[in-house]
Amino acid sequence: VSGEFAFIAQLRALATHPAARGLNDDCAVFDFGSETLVLTHDMLAEGVHFLAGQDPADVAWKLVTTNLSDLAAKGAEPLGVLLGYTLDDIGGGNDARFVVGLEEALTAYNTPLLGGDTISHTGLRSFGLTAVGRATHRPVPARSGAAIGNGLWVTGEVGRAMVGLEALTAGDANPQASLAYRRPLPLLAEGQALAPHVTAMMDVSDGLLLDAARMARASGITLAIDGQAVPIATDEARRGEALRWGDDYQLLFALPDGALPPVAATRIGTTIARRESPILLDGAPLSETSGLGYQHR
Amino acid sequence: VSGEFAFIAQLRALATHPAARGLNDDCAVFDFGSETLVLTHDMLAEGVHFLAGQDPADVAWKLVTTNLSDLAAKGAEPLGVLLGYTLDDIGGGNDARFVVGLEEALTAYNTPLLGGDTISHTGLRSFGLTAVGRATHRPVPARSGAAIGNGLWVTGEVGRAMVGLEALTAGDANPQASLAYRRPLPLLAEGQALAPHVTAMMDVSDGLLLDAARMARASGITLAIDGQAVPIATDEARRGEALRWGDDYQLLFALPDGALPPVAATRIGTTIARRESPILLDGAPLSETSGLGYQHR
Repeated sequence: VSGEFAFIAQLRALATHPAARGLNDDCAVFDFGSETLVLTHDMLAEGVHFLAGQDPADVAWKLVTTNLSDLAAKGAEPLGVLLGYTLDDIGGGNDARFVVGLEEALTAYNTPLLGGDTISHTGLRSFGLTAVGRATHRPVPARSGAAIGNGLWVTGEVGRAMVGLEALTAGDANPQASLAYRRPLPLLAEGQALAPHVTAMMDVSDGLLLDAARMARASGITLAIDGQAVPIATDEARRGEALRWGDDYQLLFALPDGALPPVAATRIGTTIARRESPILLDGAPLSETSGLGYQHR
Repeated sequence: VSGEFAFIAQLRALATHPAARGLNDDCAVFDFGSETLVLTHDMLAEGVHFLAGQDPADVAWKLVTTNLSDLAAKGAEPLGVLLGYTLDDIGGGNDARFVVGLEEALTAYNTPLLGGDTISHTGLRSFGLTAVGRATHRPVPARSGAAIGNGLWVTGEVGRAMVGLEALTAGDANPQASLAYRRPLPLLAEGQALAPHVTAMMDVSDGLLLDAARMARASGITLAIDGQAVPIATDEARRGEALRWGDDYQLLFALPDGALPPVAATRIGTTIARRESPILLDGAPLSETSGLGYQHR
């Protein structure tokens, strides 16, 4: 839908302040007094980011933790969140279940609810959350710092949320089977440990290859990725899908060659001089229009 | 809808952090390094806070300025905003018009767009905005500080937005007639000038009497209001409506008896010892369940 892209481009043209590092997929970072603030606002929409009929406690968890994951990628510690909530017009305890998940996530990450707004609305619902964080290391990691010769690393495995979503939509009776999709974990401690060492960092929300391409574009380099090196949480036959599926919220980062990360992670590639395509996957060029994955907003 | 109130009560029970001063109608305030942050998040919903078919540029203006009005009531200066935007699924330039109004408002108040998120969605739309501000005076004014014997004051006139909305719905060909409803003005300079002097302050978003009742409840006093003293922007016959209509975003504040405000304002009442009702209007007790106005969320 080209109008949407035009709009987003127009918004980006407005967001020229040095603190504004992007829309939709990055935090704002600015010095404030003696500290550095990190701010992010992400939304979840019914039918896009969560399933109609999904447990509202899981939706609340995901709303909090996906925003905290953005802070994690900046090495920030959360100070609090503000909630924008569309009240349920159907009833049946959905709002109460949302509060349960909200409290679970805020408690798990020791993050207070600072404020927000609620509105009455009919139809499909959406929720917004602003997370406010304090940078623990300055300069704050950006996705734009990867330099030629850096190693590219990723925490954990990708494809786990993909498998979890499939279990959920298939009605798997075992809630553990869908846990990775329903209850993502923001890697706050890992992000803080990594922040002093990385040349670039981001969280993997929309798919490893697509997010790696964003890092490559922002850094002005190309990322040569060894597809076989990427840890996946599914069958080998589905490796290609796992590299393109999102929602895992692992941290993707670049380190100077030879440096080893202070947290468990796997080296999956190397930064090379900029080519036409942002990604070389096992030597094959991939770009946003072919082969990187599905991009939802 | 009692479920909604139960939900809001549950959210408020979660928002116990000292920085959390309320949901739906107040800012979060917390010390951060050498400065004090003021944060607010307000939403606008189609059919509730704006009319379907209203110029999206006006909606964008209102989204920004109503949030900045919350900062004004804290004497804060805006540092920036984050936008949560539901993309238009109809087309026809609505998104582009939104950008026009967004840029107008951000430019008028010298406030950068720092980030945000956009989602695709069908049906009625809603928008959220987080405004981030810096306190210019500490302690930051709250609605809870009014003490017995204070004077109660209000800037400007009330009822102007009411008249503007009526002009808009009536299809008045003169855009000036609906300006006050479409383009509210956040009183940032006035709020900063008042902050060192007031014992309590808030903006009037939902109606003078209803918002005054909130100040009275928060401060543990009753407000004796002289209805005839309130400046209104409409016929004398509609004084009662003007006192109950919202959207004017004037500042309501309390000052020690005898003190005069540093900005143009009108004294409209006095704080007295707490009674059963939060408001005495010309001697008649009014409470949230009778006589204060219409409360939308």
